[in-house]
Formats: sequence, C-alpha cells, structure tokens
Amino acid sequence: MNTPRNRRIVLAARPDGAPKPSDFRMEETEAPSPVEGQMLLRNLYLSLDPYMRGRMNAGRSYASPVEVGEVMVGGTVSEVAASCHPDFKEGDVVVGYAGWQDYALSNGAGLMKLDPTAAPITTSLGVMGMPGLTAYVGLLSIGRPKPGETVVVAAATGPVGSAVGQIARIKGARAVGVAGGDDKRRALIEEFGFDVALDHRAPDFAAALAEACPSGIDVYFENVGGPVFSAVMPLLNDFARVPVCGLVANYNDRGAPAAPDRTPLLMRQILSQRLTVQGFIVSDHFDQQPAFMRDMSGWVREGKVRYLEDIVEGLDAAPAALIGLLEGRNFGKLLVRLANPAD
Amino acid sequence: MNTPRNRRIVLAARPDGAPKPSDFRMEETEAPSPVEGQMLLRNLYLSLDPYMRGRMNAGRSYASPVEVGEVMVGGTVSEVAASCHPDFKEGDVVVGYAGWQDYALSNGAGLMKLDPTAAPITTSLGVMGMPGLTAYVGLLSIGRPKPGETVVVAAATGPVGSAVGQIARIKGARAVGVAGGDDKRRALIEEFGFDVALDHRAPDFAAALAEACPSGIDVYFENVGGPVFSAVMPLLNDFARVPVCGLVANYNDRGAPAAPDRTPLLMRQILSQRLTVQGFIVSDHFDQQPAFMRDMSGWVREGKVRYLEDIVEGLDAAPAALIGLLEGRNFGKLLVRLANPAD
Repeated sequence: MNTPRNRRIVLAARPDGAPKPSDFRMEETEAPSPVEGQMLLRNLYLSLDPYMRGRMNAGRSYASPVEVGEVMVGGTVSEVAASCHPDFKEGDVVVGYAGWQDYALSNGAGLMKLDPTAAPITTSLGVMGMPGLTAYVGLLSIGRPKPGETVVVAAATGPVGSAVGQIARIKGARAVGVAGGDDKRRALIEEFGFDVALDHRAPDFAAALAEACPSGIDVYFENVGGPVFSAVMPLLNDFARVPVCGLVANYNDRGAPAAPDRTPLLMRQILSQRLTVQGFIVSDHFDQQPAFMRDMSGWVREGKVRYLEDIVEGLDAAPAALIGLLEGRNFGKLLVRLANPAD
Repeated sequence: MNTPRNRRIVLAARPDGAPKPSDFRMEETEAPSPVEGQMLLRNLYLSLDPYMRGRMNAGRSYASPVEVGEVMVGGTVSEVAASCHPDFKEGDVVVGYAGWQDYALSNGAGLMKLDPTAAPITTSLGVMGMPGLTAYVGLLSIGRPKPGETVVVAAATGPVGSAVGQIARIKGARAVGVAGGDDKRRALIEEFGFDVALDHRAPDFAAALAEACPSGIDVYFENVGGPVFSAVMPLLNDFARVPVCGLVANYNDRGAPAAPDRTPLLMRQILSQRLTVQGFIVSDHFDQQPAFMRDMSGWVREGKVRYLEDIVEGLDAAPAALIGLLEGRNFGKLLVRLANPAD
C-alpha cells in the first residue's frame, strides 16, 4: 500500500466563549505506518458530541484537555487499512477514539470490533454506543424512574435525550421532551413516542412545562442547564432525582453570570425537597456495558428504541458542525462521514 | 390537682432576616384539662434546634410553618402530670413535640416513653434523639465514608456535627471539624476526638482547611452553607458525597446574594467531579431508628460517642437562646430547662 495522505483537524486556539472556525486548523501530513503490534485505521465516521467543547478548554475537568496543536478528540468508526497486530486484520471494522482525522495508528487499546451485518456501523457511535450507554446509566442508575412518574429531558432529539425518553417509557414513566423548534417537537412525538414535546424557545415555555407536568417532575435528566433547568426547578417533586449528564447551555460561558447568586436557593431546595443531584460520566460505568448491550439491542430490534442520525459530509465540515451542535442545530446523532468502507 | 397556669411562647411576628425578641411573645393561660384518652404533659426540657428558624417563615418548606399566634414547635421531654390515657400514667417521662410551653395536652401520638434510669433523659433530645439520628442517617446512608477517607463537618460541636465526626471515626475515616472560636476547637479535639479542628472565623480558614485535607474531601456533611461551603467546594474529591442536612448560615437570608450567580459553576463541578449532593430530612428515615438506637446506645456506653449539653434555665430564656443558636453561640446541644421532675 502506498502511504496515503492524512488530513487532520487540530485545535488551533482555545475558544473564548463559543468556538469559532479559526479555533480549528486543518493539517495534512503523511499517514503514519504501523509497526509490529500496531495497525493503521482509516476512519469512516467521526462522532461529534457536546463533551468536545470541554476538552477545548485548558484546566481541570474530568478528562485532560486537548492541547493546542493536537488533533481534536473524537469517537470514530474505522476500517483497518493495514495491520501488524495479531488480533485485527485488514478490513475489520472497529469503533474507538481515533480523532478528527482520516488515518490513525492504534495498538488495539480501547478498540472494539463491529459486526457490520448485525447493525448499521454508525449505531456504535449513537444508540448502541457511548450516548446510548450514557442515557441507560444515568436514567436507570441515578434517575430510577418508577411507573407513572414524570421524566423530563432536554436536547431530547439528540442521541442521549431520545434514548432517555424512550427508556423512561419502557419503564412505565411519562416522558416529557424539550427541544428547539417545531420539527424537533414533531420528531419527539412521531419518532420517539414522547408523551409531550415542548419547544424551549417558546416565550411561554415555563408555563407550558408546568402544564405538561401536572403531577410535578420526578426525574430531570440534566443535559443542558440554563433556562430549562430554571423552568424545571420549581416543578421538582420531593425526592426527585437529577442525574447531571451535561450542561451544554453553559459550555460557552466565559464566567459566572452577572445575576444574583442562586446557589443558596438551590441548596435550600435540595434540602427541603430532599433532592438528589448527582453528576456522572459514562466512562465510570463501563461495567454496565454488557447489560446495556443486551437490553438496548433488544429494544432497538423490537422497535421500542428508535434513533435519528444527522450525517454531514467530509472532515472539513466538522468544525462548523460542532459549532452548530453547541447551538442546538443538529437533528439527531451528529456524525461526519469521512470515507466509505473499502472504497 | 388544681389547674395550673400555662406559660407559652407564641410566634408574634414572622422574622425579617434574623429573629428578634419581639418576634416571640409570652402568654399565660390556664393549662388545659385532659379528657378520656388524653393526658396533660408537664414539660421538663425543651430542645432548641436550627430547623425552628424555617418554621417561623411562611411558605413552602418540608413542614408546615408555625402560624402567627401559634405556640412555637419544639421537641420536649415531659412528665405525665395527669392521665386519662390507658397507656400512660402520672409520673411517666416521655419524649415528644409539646412545644415552647409549660404544659400541653397529648393523646399519645408521637410520644415515646423514656426509662430515666437507662440514660439521662436529656439525651433523648440530643445524641440518642433526633440530632443523633440525623447524623447517623446522613453520614451512613448518604455520606457512606470509607476507611481512610476524609469527612468534613461544620457546626461540629453541635449535637449533629459532633455525632457525625465521632461516627466517621468509628467507621475508620478522618474527621475534620469546623466550629467558631478556640473553646470549641479545643472541645472538638479533647471531647470528641476529631483529627483536626478548625475555626471558620480565622482569616486564613480556607487555606487551613486545604492544609487539613491533604487528600481532599470525600464527604462534606452540610450543616451550615455559606463561607464554609465555599471553602469546601474546591477541595472535594471526585465522587465526593454531600449530604445536605442544614444551611444555618443562610436561614436568615432575605433573598439571593449579590452577583455573580455561581449556580452554573456548582452544577459544572457536580458533573465533572461526579458529586452526589443529596438533601435529607430525618423524619423520612424513622425506619432506621431501631438500628440507630442499637448502635448509638452501644457507642455511648463504650465512650466512643460523647456529647455536650448547653442548658439554659427557664422558658423566658428560650427566644434569646434560639437567636444565639442561629449565630453559633450555643456550645453543644442547646436545651431549655423548664422544670424538674416531680418538684
């Protein structure tokens, strides 16, 4: 095989607030060559996810930041283009974290082989992958919805939110989904079977949420923070659970808002209503992967869990697509198609 | 028995900020007479506790407010002065909620008989009562300290905080206590065996707390809120647990503090460090009373859990004593002695 060219997108600058296209830079180099124990991956799909915004910042978080000049992190489905690794052969399709680039070396760590005949390979980055497991762990281990309870989730057409709502219904709870715009509201009802779908952009959103939750809110699966959280708080029932999975509305914040400090009010509500507010990161819960794979593959097969994909074409579209994701402009699981298998 | 006079303290006005003496009013009436199925309780000790501040406000909380003109709520140890109740006889000593007054009628609901030979009757309002159970439930069910972990508690010479620290040590954790002033610091070490005692009034308190917790904080038992909470937050370890039991530093607040709004920062920390922040109220956990009574009576007997009492004399001292409690001026479990048994 001739050494192919590798295009890759690196972090050019740490964003100040919302990321701009100039915070990313496309580079082109020679693809690396695998040595014994390694393989060359050719990336087919790149997953774009909200957590990436956090990795663009310096400083403490739950994972190391991407350094300026480094390739952006990202989950990928890849084809093994060349292998010097005993467990992988050319043509194998794998899911892993090969980043925003056409090619990457791997020693096999963190890779999982896919069976492309069992399910569309893209689902390994969505409903059957990290976002699906995130929904499963956060809702079932922390949210623990009981039959008849009300579960609210925002970013509800996204891969996490849509799985949260559908799993909530499988468990007998009412699912109230929040998303931006009429098309998404329609998808919440027609595709995902939410009981109620609300537009967080509507001027009467808080009142509509209250009306949609006549018995209050028992589980608020926190994906977004911001005004949705503010509208949810007064509706929480005693003993409500708030799994904190993401805060995408705040990711571009430059500092604390110039508004009265509501921390004491939040803490007082946590106390007087005996709330549980618990953060979680999916990577702490890989022990639940086997149960998740078993349950979720069954639910997908039976049509009880459906999914939407929003696929953009080509690596150079990735920066704008991530910027759009942070503004809620994706519609379903956002993926970048980098190449087709064996083309 | 001649009908005795009953002195009682009622809520005269809802406090605006910190309660003032004029928010309370002493009244004197005839003590009521029990009819069939009732008894007349003569109160010996009244417990003063931070939750009382919340009951003085109108509006939603975890319990109904005291109405203006009503007798202030409070836990009491009482002697049965006259009984028309089949299960209680004159001279029985009982613990219950007979309020800020000399006498009260009871039908027996919520009363528990005490054996005055088994333990000092005042402990039923402290280490063996509601505050002790609060510490037990919050620390063991929510805090779940593991051997070698660091537990921080403020208001640490109080009946809840001192039990939290001592139970933490019984479970093999390090106990860091926070209190106001040198005498209290000394008591934390000498009476209660905390590993470290800190004065929250010290100008270098935040630095001293950091130094006292070189491996970070795994459990912060939240009694107080305010600046102690602010100093604790940066020291919390990943997966730390924060049982929220009280927020006495905020109870007199008139509204949200000035900007900036730190709520998004708190939520982000909950997410990135996978914190669990969980409010609880002891009355939801009476199912743990038998285990608590068994464990705590053993610990007290073995000298593993000690307690301090701060007893003021006479009902008319109660308002100033509660005002002082909210300012941290009590030293140990605050009680008002109303009368002596059978005097």
